[in-house]
Amino acid sequence: MDYRALLLEGNVQPFLWKARYGIERESQRVTEAGQLVATDHPKALGNRTYHPYIQTDFAETQVELITPVCQSIPELFRYLAAIHDVCYRSLEDKEMLWPLSMPPRLPQKEEEIRLAKLEKFEDVLYRRYLAKTYGRRKQMMSGIHFNFEFGDELLQRMFAQQTEEKDYQQFKTDVYLKVTRNYLSYRWFITYLFGASPLSEPNFFVGAAGPKEPVRSLRNSSFGYKNHDDVQVRYDTLPHYLEDLQQMVEDGKLSEEKEFYSSVRLRGGKKVSDLEQVGIHYIELRNLDLNPFAPYGISEEQVAFLHLYLLFLLVKEEVTDEKAIKKGSLKNNVVSLEHPLQESAYQEEAKALFAELKTFIQTTRMDVSEELLEQVQQAIEDPTKTLAGRWYQQAKQQTQAKEATAIGKSYEQKAWEKPYQLAGFRSMELSTQILLFDAIQKGLSVNVLDEEDQFVQLSAQEHVEYVKNANMTSKDTYIAPLIMANKTVTKKVLAQAGFVVPSGGEYESEEQALAAFHEYSDHGFVVKPKTTNYGLGISIFKDTPAFADFREAVRIAFAEDTAILIEEFLPGTEYRFFVIDGQVKAILLRVPANVVGDGVHSIAELVAEKNNDPLRGTNHRAPLECIQLGDLEKLMLKEQGYTPTAVPEEGVTVYLRENSNVSTGGDSIDVTDEFPEDYKELAISAVAALGAVISGIDLIIPDKNQPASNPGAYGIIEANFNPAMHMHVFPYSGAGQRLTMDVLKLLFPERIKEIGQ
Amino acid sequence: MDYRALLLEGNVQPFLWKARYGIERESQRVTEAGQLVATDHPKALGNRTYHPYIQTDFAETQVELITPVCQSIPELFRYLAAIHDVCYRSLEDKEMLWPLSMPPRLPQKEEEIRLAKLEKFEDVLYRRYLAKTYGRRKQMMSGIHFNFEFGDELLQRMFAQQTEEKDYQQFKTDVYLKVTRNYLSYRWFITYLFGASPLSEPNFFVGAAGPKEPVRSLRNSSFGYKNHDDVQVRYDTLPHYLEDLQQMVEDGKLSEEKEFYSSVRLRGGKKVSDLEQVGIHYIELRNLDLNPFAPYGISEEQVAFLHLYLLFLLVKEEVTDEKAIKKGSLKNNVVSLEHPLQESAYQEEAKALFAELKTFIQTTRMDVSEELLEQVQQAIEDPTKTLAGRWYQQAKQQTQAKEATAIGKSYEQKAWEKPYQLAGFRSMELSTQILLFDAIQKGLSVNVLDEEDQFVQLSAQEHVEYVKNANMTSKDTYIAPLIMANKTVTKKVLAQAGFVVPSGGEYESEEQALAAFHEYSDHGFVVKPKTTNYGLGISIFKDTPAFADFREAVRIAFAEDTAILIEEFLPGTEYRFFVIDGQVKAILLRVPANVVGDGVHSIAELVAEKNNDPLRGTNHRAPLECIQLGDLEKLMLKEQGYTPTAVPEEGVTVYLRENSNVSTGGDSIDVTDEFPEDYKELAISAVAALGAVISGIDLIIPDKNQPASNPGAYGIIEANFNPAMHMHVFPYSGAGQRLTMDVLKLLFPERIKEIGQ
Repeated sequence: MDYRALLLEGNVQPFLWKARYGIERESQRVTEAGQLVATDHPKALGNRTYHPYIQTDFAETQVELITPVCQSIPELFRYLAAIHDVCYRSLEDKEMLWPLSMPPRLPQKEEEIRLAKLEKFEDVLYRRYLAKTYGRRKQMMSGIHFNFEFGDELLQRMFAQQTEEKDYQQFKTDVYLKVTRNYLSYRWFITYLFGASPLSEPNFFVGAAGPKEPVRSLRNSSFGYKNHDDVQVRYDTLPHYLEDLQQMVEDGKLSEEKEFYSSVRLRGGKKVSDLEQVGIHYIELRNLDLNPFAPYGISEEQVAFLHLYLLFLLVKEEVTDEKAIKKGSLKNNVVSLEHPLQESAYQEEAKALFAELKTFIQTTRMDVSEELLEQVQQAIEDPTKTLAGRWYQQAKQQTQAKEATAIGKSYEQKAWEKPYQLAGFRSMELSTQILLFDAIQKGLSVNVLDEEDQFVQLSAQEHVEYVKNANMTSKDTYIAPLIMANKTVTKKVLAQAGFVVPSGGEYESEEQALAAFHEYSDHGFVVKPKTTNYGLGISIFKDTPAFADFREAVRIAFAEDTAILIEEFLPGTEYRFFVIDGQVKAILLRVPANVVGDGVHSIAELVAEKNNDPLRGTNHRAPLECIQLGDLEKLMLKEQGYTPTAVPEEGVTVYLRENSNVSTGGDSIDVTDEFPEDYKELAISAVAALGAVISGIDLIIPDKNQPASNPGAYGIIEANFNPAMHMHVFPYSGAGQRLTMDVLKLLFPERIKEIGQ
Repeated sequence: MDYRALLLEGNVQPFLWKARYGIERESQRVTEAGQLVATDHPKALGNRTYHPYIQTDFAETQVELITPVCQSIPELFRYLAAIHDVCYRSLEDKEMLWPLSMPPRLPQKEEEIRLAKLEKFEDVLYRRYLAKTYGRRKQMMSGIHFNFEFGDELLQRMFAQQTEEKDYQQFKTDVYLKVTRNYLSYRWFITYLFGASPLSEPNFFVGAAGPKEPVRSLRNSSFGYKNHDDVQVRYDTLPHYLEDLQQMVEDGKLSEEKEFYSSVRLRGGKKVSDLEQVGIHYIELRNLDLNPFAPYGISEEQVAFLHLYLLFLLVKEEVTDEKAIKKGSLKNNVVSLEHPLQESAYQEEAKALFAELKTFIQTTRMDVSEELLEQVQQAIEDPTKTLAGRWYQQAKQQTQAKEATAIGKSYEQKAWEKPYQLAGFRSMELSTQILLFDAIQKGLSVNVLDEEDQFVQLSAQEHVEYVKNANMTSKDTYIAPLIMANKTVTKKVLAQAGFVVPSGGEYESEEQALAAFHEYSDHGFVVKPKTTNYGLGISIFKDTPAFADFREAVRIAFAEDTAILIEEFLPGTEYRFFVIDGQVKAILLRVPANVVGDGVHSIAELVAEKNNDPLRGTNHRAPLECIQLGDLEKLMLKEQGYTPTAVPEEGVTVYLRENSNVSTGGDSIDVTDEFPEDYKELAISAVAALGAVISGIDLIIPDKNQPASNPGAYGIIEANFNPAMHMHVFPYSGAGQRLTMDVLKLLFPERIKEIGQ
């Protein structure tokens, strides 16, 4: 098959970069001192039996982070980032991940390497078998498994351009077989570039000698973990491949097919035996060492290069010699065992291969990063630029263990820097980031259907749920949020059910509203637009205003909406009750932006200090907003007789804003636990009257220590159908309430029973 | 109590026009020839046992239309209008309502007057008793019962301004007792103005002589239907009133308390005996004749005048004479029996009363229509301007029966003029109007919570449901419509479930979209904004376009939204499937605006003729829009070689638009019954995959006679979460599908089991 000609077809070319990717990254859990942990797999991750993202590999200390199948390299790295974030923040205190393929110092006694405590007995048995056959120490090496599938758009179009092969499945299988053969022949080039296990730590080689000198890749060398030499299969056709595998199992050379540890695995269906039916769907590269310089063990550049290399290997002519693969393996062993700072014996061959690759890029006009090509070129010419070379040089500065510990710690710290965010999904709303964190942690499958629209799909096996904006779900009805979105309707429904709401009226013209002035002239009132939010256009008159002021308030409100509400003013403190599934899970008091004087610092200094809180940020990318010192705040200070340079006395609270919105620098104070039950019951029944399952309902309460049944004890201001959650999870003070976990519990009661688990 | 002083208090005055109203209007069903019908109460109205709006009074032919309690006069008349509309359009073919208080010609034999066929045996027994006691003929008179309650805001403020009475309930009771006494004393004035039963029809007076001359109000006179003379009660205190009533029941003068037919009834609680506990809540005026000039038997001006009059009677000094009420009744009888064109014996007294009323208006500065006062003034001076005078004059022109028949017919025709609208609610969306029609027809209580927002509350006893935009309900989940609102998410969910959707991608910048051009260059495609609707910004390329055209399409789409979709073009016909509760209830084909030539008329003439269809209107106030002949249409004609004056050949269809939207003059063609089942199953399962209960799902189908399972048999374009219903109920051609009734059936299965009923 002339694959080169097929790739050059006009309607094939736009799809050369289309592929599907998946990564499995293994890693040892270590203490912050770089020692293998003695703890079990983190409890916070729930039951590992069904966890799609975070598993244990051979040993109980060895986590395996698994991405879902991704349609692009950025998507792959967003999942890698998120899964790493979740893993780090789910580890026991003072634990982190070891950034190297070679394990840290191992126990002196092999038995002290603890096998993964898996639920299924067959999984335990298999690990026992491996321990016996290969030894536990070798199993402690970690690496990257890279799953790669050519885009269906690409293969379909290639298939359509040829007539030689009539069957699409066979066509695909042939493509992957050729790539696999060539990869096995030329994987030494990848080992040269990306090999990164030059040194071992104590107790890795026990009873058997290791290499005397540092190497490029212990893991890929004959010192690594591999099948015995008599395990060999043919790759010329799929039936041969399967036949050979089966034969080896029958001969007892392998315990089962999955024990075959080739650098490339052919994949399709769930089991090896499915391949015969469904053909090859993708291949799994297993020879990649952890890249210590990449926080996730592999970099985007490496993935892009691998994609390019596999496409190149598809068109590259094969050496027809039937021993080509065997030769490739020998070469790979040579390269693996070369000194990391030494030129390779195959440098010239590498240069020729790279020149051929560049020609391939030119011919296909593929869009490849110049920088990436430059890096590869340099690494070929200068072995100190290879991963092994770079890491060996760094390890020499102190010891490999110290350097690895330092680098591991820096990755751990990065994950904890903004614990309210989720790496990879930082452009989404905070509440959604926290929800996704919790979902990944508890082993729900996460699929972002529309990032900008905050639309996600969560699933646990067959059970699928959709969530928008973190708490819009299938558990609420269509109409309940529509009721809450309409202030007039909300009030009518609540009043019908016997709840206290501010009296008042709705007006559709200024004239109509002004004519009603006298109806409100015997108490304080509020003028507000009917539907707009965020406090825009609202005027509050605690006492009856002059008519001119009323007229102005009406004008301001109509500037925001075509209808306005005039409502009785209810004096008291406003609390947000977050109700979910018939329970109050959080109560929040919001206080306007303020600083408390210490008799020493100026207001400006106090503001700056308060803004240092890592919970404060800008543009809603943190649970609290920074306090501004703009015109509005200065005016507010002036009215109180202050300037920004004034030094308030110790203990004096200075307010910088009238409104209590968190979005203008206000404080969020969790008061959930100190609230009397009767108000909680009230909030629960009001939300029930609205027919809602999730609601943030705002109550004005003059004195929460008075019974809720007293006349004037409360008034309900509004109910929010998509209430913010991040401000409850990370409040300014008081306990954080992990409402996102409550949402997941509501959606997946079969998975999440206790919030702590 | 000095009520005048209380009313004049500054904080009381703004509330003088605040009140609650309710009307019961009785009417005889007649044929279009003006004869009493022989049919039963209309089946379309469902079970009358619980119908809140349309009941039967004494006779099976006598409907009673009942408004709910209303907060304003406009609200009262919107319900009157709507209930009348529903009643007219629910009557058997060629039936209508008799517009007079006096019944049409009655059967010669009294037994042929059929008692109402009520379910409850006690109700039947009561009617039998009445028939025996008063005779069936008198029970055939109809009238208006007017329920009136002063606004609570008004009474509360009056109460707060005085110290004499400590108990609010007693204060209210005293208010209504005084108004009642004065109303009984001065009701002759209302009879003079609004009496409207001057003449009887054959067989009303049988065995007893009627008056020899025409009168003002037969119904209010001694010839009318009233208790026997020995039925008298005291109105000085509530205990006296109740004591007297009870005594008369005990003495056998009344069968039960409700047999007491005063011109004013004191109301509060469900039964008369509740009054003792709860006090008087409102009063019911029972002396109003049907006004033949008002389509609903009473006009807004009459209601406003009654409100004013009752307030005036509250402050008017009472004649302390204990026989004042008796005297008032005698006067009323005199006025009732005066010739309608003759000056009243009490004309001077009427003038004085009116002068006093005008002074009252001036003192209280109440806002009263000048026109209304002018009309009353004229009627006082000129009896031909009273209702009785006007009607008597009209009746003389031919006969009363003929005039009444003509006027009844005109009201009936009005109700049928736009059968897709509901009087009183015409500013709401058509689908909501039709839904409200159906709800009222089937006896669901209807409460419009927010008119502009199309938000209604429906209830059947304790069962309450909320509906927005006619089909947004509690039966759908919150998330399903959010899925449908997002085209990308919809496609992903459908594709995951195995349905065919157009392939394509989403792009967030022009650059990104333009770079993808080559991916689409081997088939036709559509460029469209991601979220906006109504077909704006969409470009359809049935074949691959030139790059410049593609660039223009991308620009146009981005002008509408921040993200666009590029989608494979699917050739075929687009059908809208309306799915509700797992069933396809309607399938619609939409055809672009067009006319079919006849070889005689010009295109402009054909358009004008087609626009004559009563189903066509403008601004979405009709199920179909008028076809325009604007620039776009002329351009379209030009491209086909036509001008508006061109005369197309017979049978030739000329299209005036490219798009098939009904909103631009397109035709809606119902094809529900001719569609194969497999496509219906497909639509049902696609909607189920989206988790929706109600959805309008759009399928492209090249040939509906090919099995839906064939490759390329269909593609799903989008799913609508609030699909229009009116176009299915009143299509351009094909059967109408009453989807609104399906919605009600979904919400109230206990009430609506079969759509036909």
